[in-house]
Amino acid sequence: MDAEELKNYIRNVPDFPKSGIMFKDITPLLKDKYAFSASIKLLADHIRNLDYDYIAGIDSRGFIISAALANELNSGLLLIRKKGKLPYHTVSIDYQLEYGSDSLEMHEDSIKKGDKVIIVDDLLATGGTSGAAAKLIEKLGGQVSELTFMIELSDLKGKDKLKDYPIYSLLKY
Amino acid sequence: MDAEELKNYIRNVPDFPKSGIMFKDITPLLKDKYAFSASIKLLADHIRNLDYDYIAGIDSRGFIISAALANELNSGLLLIRKKGKLPYHTVSIDYQLEYGSDSLEMHEDSIKKGDKVIIVDDLLATGGTSGAAAKLIEKLGGQVSELTFMIELSDLKGKDKLKDYPIYSLLKY
Repeated sequence: MDAEELKNYIRNVPDFPKSGIMFKDITPLLKDKYAFSASIKLLADHIRNLDYDYIAGIDSRGFIISAALANELNSGLLLIRKKGKLPYHTVSIDYQLEYGSDSLEMHEDSIKKGDKVIIVDDLLATGGTSGAAAKLIEKLGGQVSELTFMIELSDLKGKDKLKDYPIYSLLKY
Repeated sequence: MDAEELKNYIRNVPDFPKSGIMFKDITPLLKDKYAFSASIKLLADHIRNLDYDYIAGIDSRGFIISAALANELNSGLLLIRKKGKLPYHTVSIDYQLEYGSDSLEMHEDSIKKGDKVIIVDDLLATGGTSGAAAKLIEKLGGQVSELTFMIELSDLKGKDKLKDYPIYSLLKY
């Protein structure tokens, strides 16, 4: 199953999470064992050639893709979480949303200086969250090897906000 | 690496999420590629012998374990989410917490009548969340093949609340 066929398993849901947004729902892809397995194998085949130490997943749909990838690649997995979810000492970064702001956190001992990290999320939209995740990795002394997404919404030009980093997306819209 | 060795990668964090609770932090296990891989392979070896159609993961640390397991077993993955997170038509169930109540949701087309589901979460504590997840699967017409956990806190007697279902935990405390 190639990337174009996998798009048959992405459901368009209008007006979620708010009016005017066409949401890309990955649950039909996850539910189908052939589609889920094929999508992870395609992403893993790409990542396998990169220079990296860890896979990091962004809370919470990013956990799904990153955990399956870490398993497929026999990699260690780091968690980038929303505020207040991690139990140990954390380092955090604030970032702007369309309305208001939000924070991401990692454990302060997640990575050591120079560790190379691939950041994984389900979706690249405006790039706000993944850009903050990349800056958080750097704040901890790490290097971002790549930002890897299952889906990219090209019209929202998230790549323009993430020019400092290599980006790979499996399914482009 | 066996279950006893894997316990070396679980960190005890006192007073999280509130005073008096000793939190079992799985992030050191996830970060270590050998420990993460071994834990998923041990869980998969157990699940492989069961009769089931889908793996279902509970939001949000359950997503990590369930997604890695679904990848290891070439299974389809279903999402059991907190209220308001799923984009399509949902079925929900309310359940009581120590203080107040909460809800879990699944897409109404997640499963069809008679589908057999293994519910996966990182931790069995009092059994409130996983019991609600099991009832939600049944509300959708499904059958619960097993509740599978990475960690069980035996003192909290969650099993007493889940007598109707088979339970398996990899790391028992």
